[in-house]
Amino acid sequence: MSKLKKTQEFLQEQYLDVALIMDPAAIRLISGYSTEPHERIAALFVFPSSDPILFVPSLEEKMAREVVETENSHYTVISYADQEDPWQVLSDYLKAINNSLKRWALEKNYITIERLEALQAHFLQADFSHNLSPFINHLRLQKGVKEIELLKIAGDYADLAISIGVNALKEGVSELEVVALIEYEMKKRGILSMSFDTMVLFGDHAADPHGIPGQRTLGQNEFVLFDLGVFYQGYASDITRTVFFGQKMSPEQIQIHEVVQKAHDLALAAVKPGVKAQELDRIARNYISEQGYGEFFIHRLGHGIGQSCHEFPSIVEGNQMELIPGMCFSIEPGIYIPGKIGVRIEDCVVVTENGCELFTHAPSYID
Amino acid sequence: MSKLKKTQEFLQEQYLDVALIMDPAAIRLISGYSTEPHERIAALFVFPSSDPILFVPSLEEKMAREVVETENSHYTVISYADQEDPWQVLSDYLKAINNSLKRWALEKNYITIERLEALQAHFLQADFSHNLSPFINHLRLQKGVKEIELLKIAGDYADLAISIGVNALKEGVSELEVVALIEYEMKKRGILSMSFDTMVLFGDHAADPHGIPGQRTLGQNEFVLFDLGVFYQGYASDITRTVFFGQKMSPEQIQIHEVVQKAHDLALAAVKPGVKAQELDRIARNYISEQGYGEFFIHRLGHGIGQSCHEFPSIVEGNQMELIPGMCFSIEPGIYIPGKIGVRIEDCVVVTENGCELFTHAPSYID
Repeated sequence: MSKLKKTQEFLQEQYLDVALIMDPAAIRLISGYSTEPHERIAALFVFPSSDPILFVPSLEEKMAREVVETENSHYTVISYADQEDPWQVLSDYLKAINNSLKRWALEKNYITIERLEALQAHFLQADFSHNLSPFINHLRLQKGVKEIELLKIAGDYADLAISIGVNALKEGVSELEVVALIEYEMKKRGILSMSFDTMVLFGDHAADPHGIPGQRTLGQNEFVLFDLGVFYQGYASDITRTVFFGQKMSPEQIQIHEVVQKAHDLALAAVKPGVKAQELDRIARNYISEQGYGEFFIHRLGHGIGQSCHEFPSIVEGNQMELIPGMCFSIEPGIYIPGKIGVRIEDCVVVTENGCELFTHAPSYID
Repeated sequence: MSKLKKTQEFLQEQYLDVALIMDPAAIRLISGYSTEPHERIAALFVFPSSDPILFVPSLEEKMAREVVETENSHYTVISYADQEDPWQVLSDYLKAINNSLKRWALEKNYITIERLEALQAHFLQADFSHNLSPFINHLRLQKGVKEIELLKIAGDYADLAISIGVNALKEGVSELEVVALIEYEMKKRGILSMSFDTMVLFGDHAADPHGIPGQRTLGQNEFVLFDLGVFYQGYASDITRTVFFGQKMSPEQIQIHEVVQKAHDLALAAVKPGVKAQELDRIARNYISEQGYGEFFIHRLGHGIGQSCHEFPSIVEGNQMELIPGMCFSIEPGIYIPGKIGVRIEDCVVVTENGCELFTHAPSYID
């Protein structure tokens, strides 16, 4: 069933008159149209039975028509100019076609208070209390075949980017030079955006999980942490490798890398339908704690991935959601000893009927 | 007066108990601390007279302490771990130090309905009706000396990026190759992020003001539209040049470029304190209309710039705000003839006592 149809059925079941969808990722998921309205307003209106409306800035009107009229000829596209009040245009239009929109569902995790108040001012009789976000989260949660295909291709590019980064390592190179080279090679191949700012951190610099690449240069026998991903046709990848540059790893480097790798592998091996999200975090965390590094694993095990690099659900203690086939998320244990060393290993997976499948396959580059 | 002090005075004047600030740009503006919490919660609490509190994910705690304890030793930093409910941690902490927080001011143009409802659930007696956004907008509106210095440096990098792009033009090069090269050269020089996805569009491809660079290759006697900018220490630049590649411009190319350039120059010459924002839009639009291209100038004249590439205020018909010294915004008229040609010329300026000063100085590269 199409995501549009699912949304319509949801509205019917809940006796709702309209779903107002403003998160560009959700608009794309349902309509196929990619909007980037920045501070302007773009919105998708889905109704229980009548045709959906795509509301965009006039700048986007042509592009919007091309997309939705090709794929779904029954969409109505309406637009507003920069000098118009979009809420007024919307309100006039909606009232002209249907003045009985009472029960609205809004994405409460996306829509701001200001926008809610604008809606309230224009639709005085409406009830905006219904939260659409849980439904949208679930719509995004279980990826379809086509989505998984795109996530795999995004993963292939991430593997390639790691390989490019590893090949660029040499004594004296700066973190930023390696970042610049990786992104250059990706852009040349048609990748318009990385899924987040590429992270390349040398040695002690990697001990901060949110470290920022700079002019620090690479020395012998240091770890290099790569954390990166790309967007491919609207779908994200995300991979981390902590590789070694030099001749000989210290016993501490060997041990910490092994512990993180094992924690990663144990969690990965436990992924299958029915397992609770928090259980994966526990498996990795318990192992790291047993090895004496528990206090240095200072973040959750992972996050959902799809149209955004970080999305629902969180793989974290307290999340009792059971895994289901089609769910996609990262597994990324890490050990960070402040001022000294940081190791993280991350892959993203899709849950299958019996286990999971990896989106990324880059080697550890340790041996 | 510091931005923190201004915020405290605002709270005193409005008899408010606390300002809750969640937009990372506003947190940085007031506290000096740059947070990137993604879907996690980061917040700055400013009180009328007592010390501010910076609330961050535990991952950021160390970095936050380093910044605010250096610059402002009176900040309190508190944090929460991934497995904790941040709202509960916040609520427990705030209630322990002060249980009389009744009148809150929130950024209604940033905070989501979901976050408002979480606050309402934890602070049952509080009043969240006051909108902090207009105050924050004004705090961001008038840039200080240090901010203008950073915007100028960001502008210098944008000029350099245009020059790098122009030098990369040759027959058969693709839009994406030029994008990749520009961003590579910027990253190498320490620019961590462009202020938006770099736009390089050839010929008819530039007729869509939101076009996306692709594998289209450059031919002789075509226009090339560059629209790009960088972030430098948290401040954005934004420039557009439409340059010519080839031997001889057609009469239409000459005319359209001249009309856009003149519209740009006329608006620029009109900038000074006391002029209304919409007046600048009218000056450029009227000129383009007189020349017969009015229907092809399909967006506003400009947007504010500062910590974000697009921010308050909008230089658009209907905005009667009077310009004041320290306001920074873009002037970017354009003419777009669908399927055929697109020309835009953009510079950002800061309003001075008598006129304005440009942040970018790249030549037109037309002659």
